[in-house]
Amino acid sequence: MNTKVFERSFQNSKHNQSQVFHREIEVANTKKKSLQLVEAGRTPEEATFNLSTYLSQRQGLVEEALERSITVVYPEKIYEAMRYSLLAGGKRLRPILCLASCELSGGTVDMAMPTACALEMVHTMSLIHDDLPAMDNDDYRRGKLTNHKVYGEDIAILAGDGLLAYAFEFIVVQTKGVPAEHLLQVVAKLSHAVAATGLVGGQVVDLESEGLKNISLETLNFIHAHKTGALLETSVVTGGLLTGADEEILQRLSRYACNIGLAFQIIDDVLDITATAEQLGKSAGKDLQAQKATYPSLLGIQESKNQAKKLIEEAKAELAPFGEKAIPLMAIADYITDRTH
Amino acid sequence: MNTKVFERSFQNSKHNQSQVFHREIEVANTKKKSLQLVEAGRTPEEATFNLSTYLSQRQGLVEEALERSITVVYPEKIYEAMRYSLLAGGKRLRPILCLASCELSGGTVDMAMPTACALEMVHTMSLIHDDLPAMDNDDYRRGKLTNHKVYGEDIAILAGDGLLAYAFEFIVVQTKGVPAEHLLQVVAKLSHAVAATGLVGGQVVDLESEGLKNISLETLNFIHAHKTGALLETSVVTGGLLTGADEEILQRLSRYACNIGLAFQIIDDVLDITATAEQLGKSAGKDLQAQKATYPSLLGIQESKNQAKKLIEEAKAELAPFGEKAIPLMAIADYITDRTH
Repeated sequence: MNTKVFERSFQNSKHNQSQVFHREIEVANTKKKSLQLVEAGRTPEEATFNLSTYLSQRQGLVEEALERSITVVYPEKIYEAMRYSLLAGGKRLRPILCLASCELSGGTVDMAMPTACALEMVHTMSLIHDDLPAMDNDDYRRGKLTNHKVYGEDIAILAGDGLLAYAFEFIVVQTKGVPAEHLLQVVAKLSHAVAATGLVGGQVVDLESEGLKNISLETLNFIHAHKTGALLETSVVTGGLLTGADEEILQRLSRYACNIGLAFQIIDDVLDITATAEQLGKSAGKDLQAQKATYPSLLGIQESKNQAKKLIEEAKAELAPFGEKAIPLMAIADYITDRTH
Repeated sequence: MNTKVFERSFQNSKHNQSQVFHREIEVANTKKKSLQLVEAGRTPEEATFNLSTYLSQRQGLVEEALERSITVVYPEKIYEAMRYSLLAGGKRLRPILCLASCELSGGTVDMAMPTACALEMVHTMSLIHDDLPAMDNDDYRRGKLTNHKVYGEDIAILAGDGLLAYAFEFIVVQTKGVPAEHLLQVVAKLSHAVAATGLVGGQVVDLESEGLKNISLETLNFIHAHKTGALLETSVVTGGLLTGADEEILQRLSRYACNIGLAFQIIDDVLDITATAEQLGKSAGKDLQAQKATYPSLLGIQESKNQAKKLIEEAKAELAPFGEKAIPLMAIADYITDRTH
């Protein structure tokens, strides 16, 4: 089972990832989206929304907040190790989803930023521990040496533990203007998404599935729903929890997030196969046989694409009642569909 | 640096640890303490307090709560791994301190039990990760195979992560009758005690100090204050936070906990040296030379004993204003002094 598809493809794992990513979206925005939106009779604000600019600006805000979140003090090595991986780049998708969802449900960026940073700390912890020799044994991530290659395995384990623990303190101490009841819900939600009920559980099933050929669709869904889905869903839902959003809104946010997470995974599996077939000059069918369990290997390429498209449409339908406030989250969902073309 | 002195000596790391521990205290209680207390003009309640019975009863309550805290569901392996270490015995000192401190400051056992369990989950996480091959590489703990020897390194890392994350959800979801503001303080306090500001930081300095001969008293204090002290202090202080105790009470609880933690460490170092000298038939002085940095190696045995005694007296003085309510915490402090004889 490829354990990094979501991570890798949203970030391209290339040095020039940022440019490629932005150019791709820019094209979609300028050549197609604006026109389509105007034609569809949407508001000028919707028509002029530029996802690339939006993501870039939000990414900048998140980077600044993360940069400030950890100061290097004695014993320096552990703080440096935590910063090394936390500030190693990436699209900051989870924080951006949290900020967008908080604004959608009536909150502000400032209100959500500590939670947004905590989500990235937890995500970073999972990457550091996943890369360890006892797990996936990876030497590089995002073109840089992995944490344990730089600081040693012992410090890498501790850096992960440190980030995970610190995430909760950071939410509690740094969040301003949010009632204590709401913050407690955020803490519980994040905790649930990381523990055996979330990404830890997903990683366990992923490890157990390695080398097995007959992975069921149910198992595949479990892995993705827990290993990447749970934290993505939490990123979106905590944005709503911070504002005290009612149950209906939280449910819509949750279904939106689950759908885009799964759609992304499916499209990624499809693109991976296509790329491999092209590179190796092998037929897609032959490639499917050799491939570990993926959505296309279980459903076929066309049916996988159809399912992803359906998931995205359903995700967007969940946000329809929010009107203009849902534009950023709608656009992020659309970006996933665009990748099928 | 011996990284397990506190753990080992409070638990004896023998199969018959419980009996030995209880017998030891029983003797202190029946032969000496009761009489002393009555002679000192204390109340009959104080005079009849039996630490052994108290600890045994509290330990039972904590075991029951821990047993119920984790249910084995799919994927079973991770829940079993978490339970394996969490339910591997031990004196449950941290939970007992938390319950006692909560009662001292006007709360109940029920109110504090989820936090008490969370403290043990976090403590267990630190033990599982400390035992890993990349860290202390231990095959046994409390007479049982360590987590990674039974479940593999990958699952052991994840079991630790799972316990750490779950601890926070457990506090938030399971605690009843505590205002949200107080629970948030508990979350922040626990988080701070585990992160690089607490036991993770202490473990880093401990690792860095390995093999070094010239460890300063300052460094030694840092290691103990962070690696074991922070979570002990948190165990006591969270008991007070749950009841909304005022700053003066919290300060007294904090100083009590810091003092007994350090005193325990010092006495343990002293006893370790004495034991080794007896076993090997070497002079204590020669043993000191070979010994890694400990309090006796830096201060001498007599001065170490004096310091421990002074710390315990100060710890007890902090609790004097609470009268009868402080009996259990006083008795626990006394137990540490008794070990010097």
